[in-house]
Amino acid sequence: MDLFIGNKNYSSWSMRAWLVLKNFDIPFQEYLIPFDDFQIDGAFKQKILSINPTGKVPVLKHDDLIVWDSLAICEYLAELYPDKKLWPQQVKSRARARSITAEMHSGFMALRSICPMNIEAELTTVGKKFWQESVQLQHDVQRIEALWNARPNIDGFLCGEDFTIADAFYAPIVMRFISYGIPLNDESQRYMQSILSNTATQQWIQEAKREHHLVECEEPYRTKY
Amino acid sequence: MDLFIGNKNYSSWSMRAWLVLKNFDIPFQEYLIPFDDFQIDGAFKQKILSINPTGKVPVLKHDDLIVWDSLAICEYLAELYPDKKLWPQQVKSRARARSITAEMHSGFMALRSICPMNIEAELTTVGKKFWQESVQLQHDVQRIEALWNARPNIDGFLCGEDFTIADAFYAPIVMRFISYGIPLNDESQRYMQSILSNTATQQWIQEAKREHHLVECEEPYRTKY
Repeated sequence: MDLFIGNKNYSSWSMRAWLVLKNFDIPFQEYLIPFDDFQIDGAFKQKILSINPTGKVPVLKHDDLIVWDSLAICEYLAELYPDKKLWPQQVKSRARARSITAEMHSGFMALRSICPMNIEAELTTVGKKFWQESVQLQHDVQRIEALWNARPNIDGFLCGEDFTIADAFYAPIVMRFISYGIPLNDESQRYMQSILSNTATQQWIQEAKREHHLVECEEPYRTKY
Repeated sequence: MDLFIGNKNYSSWSMRAWLVLKNFDIPFQEYLIPFDDFQIDGAFKQKILSINPTGKVPVLKHDDLIVWDSLAICEYLAELYPDKKLWPQQVKSRARARSITAEMHSGFMALRSICPMNIEAELTTVGKKFWQESVQLQHDVQRIEALWNARPNIDGFLCGEDFTIADAFYAPIVMRFISYGIPLNDESQRYMQSILSNTATQQWIQEAKREHHLVECEEPYRTKY
């Protein structure tokens, strides 16, 4: 099974699928396609379009099957490995987990556009400015805090003791909150600690920080580092 | 089982869940909460927030369970009624169906923002203008045509002979393409016919046209009708 991803520092959608594969010990081969300016004749687009007609990452390739969306990848893995419990086992908990996950998949546009993931960057000055200026950003963060803090166990993950697909979808949000210094309540900070203590998340962060590959179109705020 | 929806003329996300319930003969009670200006103390928000903390439609209420996202609702229904085959039965077809569906759930922002669903409206003049001006809109439409026209059977639905969740997610797109007069190739028009021939879709359209409820914030282009 092959997973094609983008830069670990920037690619929040890649991070979701990768974290699920790692957390559930699913064997896979990782292929990182470095981001560039995303022109159609550039190296990134040429490479990814040869695998996946959406021209985006992540993509899972399993024999002749191509799964080209982060949520669809996770659902496919959950079906392929039912014993690994990628979703909560109880039907109502699973429906709640899917609501949380799909809400992230389709929403939070202000947070996503204002605060793109940039793990290695220290952007607390711009973050503070945006936090004061954007009511939409504040609303997105309030909703995420409400979601997080409805978790069953304050020291656990979103659906209980165990990491699930839902947590993989909010781990990139934890990365953004840190980079931009978004102010959060104590309960939210405890959830961030659960994510940061996760071994796979630590590995992703370390590898992101080692990349040192500044991609201009992913950097609305920094010009150098 | 109760489904809370918004105006049938405007609420593309509601249409998805409603079409799945109808197409698969799943018994449910429908509650339409009329759109207004979405102020926090207005009737819409007060009603929906009493059911669902996201403050959005659609919401499925099944006994004490609340499922608050259109994709999560469909996944819940697929689990509840495995014999009804809401997804394709073959594992690879299902992975493809979920990729198609989740791609719609998270993407096509230009199409969504430029051409909001408005079933009863005739907006071909503005549609023509946007089509000429917006490369992003053209890209979204090209991608949707590619998705549609990779269907197994030219006279069928996205995943074969039978309507699945994937089609429910693209039916609102068919509505937009008609209202805005988006130019499409013959194969795409045949898919539109499959959707328009669907009994549940016809019912939704008829009920949308009967509403006659102009909501200002849903009408960037019309001021009266």
